[in-house]
Amino acid sequence: MFDFNYFTPTKVVFGKGTEKKVAELIKEFGGTKVLVHYGQGSVIRSGLLGRVTALLDEAGISYVMLGGAVPNPRLSLVYEGIELCKKENVDFILSVGGGSAADSAKGIGYGVVNEGDVWDLYDYKKKAKGCLPVGVILTIAATGSEMSSSSVITKEEGLVKRGYSSDYARPKFAIMDPELTMTLPDYQTACGCTDIMMHTMERYFTNGGNMEITDSIAEGLLRTVKKNALILHNDPQNYDARAEVMWAGSLSHNGLTGCGSDGGDWMTHKMEHELGGLYDVAHGAGLAALWGSWARYVYRDCLPRFKKFAVNVMDISGEGSDEEIALKGIEAMEEFYRLIGMPTNIKELGVDPSEEELKIMAKKCAIGVGGEHGSAKRMNEQAMLDVYRMAAGR
Amino acid sequence: MFDFNYFTPTKVVFGKGTEKKVAELIKEFGGTKVLVHYGQGSVIRSGLLGRVTALLDEAGISYVMLGGAVPNPRLSLVYEGIELCKKENVDFILSVGGGSAADSAKGIGYGVVNEGDVWDLYDYKKKAKGCLPVGVILTIAATGSEMSSSSVITKEEGLVKRGYSSDYARPKFAIMDPELTMTLPDYQTACGCTDIMMHTMERYFTNGGNMEITDSIAEGLLRTVKKNALILHNDPQNYDARAEVMWAGSLSHNGLTGCGSDGGDWMTHKMEHELGGLYDVAHGAGLAALWGSWARYVYRDCLPRFKKFAVNVMDISGEGSDEEIALKGIEAMEEFYRLIGMPTNIKELGVDPSEEELKIMAKKCAIGVGGEHGSAKRMNEQAMLDVYRMAAGR
Repeated sequence: MFDFNYFTPTKVVFGKGTEKKVAELIKEFGGTKVLVHYGQGSVIRSGLLGRVTALLDEAGISYVMLGGAVPNPRLSLVYEGIELCKKENVDFILSVGGGSAADSAKGIGYGVVNEGDVWDLYDYKKKAKGCLPVGVILTIAATGSEMSSSSVITKEEGLVKRGYSSDYARPKFAIMDPELTMTLPDYQTACGCTDIMMHTMERYFTNGGNMEITDSIAEGLLRTVKKNALILHNDPQNYDARAEVMWAGSLSHNGLTGCGSDGGDWMTHKMEHELGGLYDVAHGAGLAALWGSWARYVYRDCLPRFKKFAVNVMDISGEGSDEEIALKGIEAMEEFYRLIGMPTNIKELGVDPSEEELKIMAKKCAIGVGGEHGSAKRMNEQAMLDVYRMAAGR
Repeated sequence: MFDFNYFTPTKVVFGKGTEKKVAELIKEFGGTKVLVHYGQGSVIRSGLLGRVTALLDEAGISYVMLGGAVPNPRLSLVYEGIELCKKENVDFILSVGGGSAADSAKGIGYGVVNEGDVWDLYDYKKKAKGCLPVGVILTIAATGSEMSSSSVITKEEGLVKRGYSSDYARPKFAIMDPELTMTLPDYQTACGCTDIMMHTMERYFTNGGNMEITDSIAEGLLRTVKKNALILHNDPQNYDARAEVMWAGSLSHNGLTGCGSDGGDWMTHKMEHELGGLYDVAHGAGLAALWGSWARYVYRDCLPRFKKFAVNVMDISGEGSDEEIALKGIEAMEEFYRLIGMPTNIKELGVDPSEEELKIMAKKCAIGVGGEHGSAKRMNEQAMLDVYRMAAGR
């Protein structure tokens, strides 16, 4: 067991119609001039954005708007948001949308408060000294950005996707209304469930430090999302299943499922960042496409955890050697991906990288992690290439 | 499933030697003049208090001291603390000890900020408008006060024990070093484990609203504490077991194990408050002495939850009727109490209330909850008296 810090200051307001509290919450956290940041058309089409701005008008809260956050949110939009906030003296950012809008909002918040190029944070060149306060109205359960310290941004030049984490960026509040997620297409729901589970799995598969209570929470969360992802695949309007998945999304990435460990493995995420940066695939789908290959590559080096996962999460019975049970757990996870329509290799993502492109991704990934990374198994550039090759069917 | 708010802003710093960070944390949260509040002799004898004040001296943080917090902390000491804080212009309260010191610190914090008699808060006559910032160095895993919104104070006149909760009183930071709990007597450790489990059980046994993910966290927490309480009964120096129980103590009462429910039952706590107020018994022991009688009185009205508890927490096999399984779960819980040296009735607490005293407790309890209370089963004064009688062996 390792020492840990745990800090989740976000005020969560969860349930039907909770977006009505947005003005009250912005005022509670001192916002007087707001940047309303959102993504593409869905929050406009659903009427949510209109309801939100009407509430701000009613409460006499001044605001400016910035749309356009896309999956794998772009640095150029972050720069645009920073300029707008500075020009308009914005003191609070409200993200209306999914993880892309929230991550982008955090990037903007960093850029307003910290001098110099905000990309330097994501490029590990300097550390943040603060961030504008951010509040979130969540419309997609996936990234956990609504409670997390992390923000992932893609720089267009070279298609470099990087994450930066600091407690400064943890949202002040998160408005979570499961009904807002009911109109999501099945594929996006499945991507979200995959990402949610992966945030806990990245923390779970380690060789450094565990706590039983953390494991029991992690396993319970994984079982819950797995069950409800299957329900939503057939019954997307199921409120309770939407709510289970939505709350799991926050708990899975706010730190709770990693207390007492060495921080986790995170290689699947790191490798997906290169895939998502280069091919702009949905993050969750990219994770699913890589995970099985990563798991087969590393499981012998982290056998007790893979066995525990197989038994306690995937309900594999106790017969067979540890290695056999671990493998059955990996297979069962891949079968689950297939059941919810997720890919289990890179080709099923609809892309077919050349050997040269696999090498570029491995090289960029290795640079991104500073040479090597991973806790289930330490991986260098060659190991990353091996996993990319496996996932690409080579 | 019910809507919910979740707000746990406390910065947790968990692990060996974390008390060394106390000065840095007080400064981070703006403390310049500190009330160091503690209990009886143990923090002096262990040397902890001396180490803490040395760290404050070293960091140039000015402070005044107030000891004397006792289990079932007293209103008179809260008044004394309020006077001292006002006189010395204290702007931060540091609690060094267990839940009694922390609860008392919150009471003092309320009294400094809110006008009028602080008891009016605990007596449901008014609501708090704020609280001085409180930080905690925890030495006993039990009440969860280090992350919770609640504070329980006993008024000497009439021996009235009441709780008041508001987010204002959630501690700014909690320093949690499991090593500080290693010298606790076995009885106190067992009382702590009982209290920790009860904070989740009170939330678990409801007839109003559930979330699967909340249940899975609750059940995992209960299994973890049960297992580690038994380990500590035989091996009190086991660091990992101390850590599991300590972290469970915070998670069990910070709100996490009640998300999506109607708030829970809480009748065992309410009834114990009268017992603890009148006879000054250890809170955890009082809970254990009452729980079995309460459970037998209510379980038929909350059968699905009692069955789930029996199967998922107490490992009762699935044979028999729901009622039989539920009863086996209750019996197994009582057997667990016996194994860790906890009482399962009032006599085993070392007190023997008269019929008149039982009636007084039931009457005070009913007044305290505003007539009736409970979610597993709604209980009025007569029902409370029935349970007190069962627990007293009448």
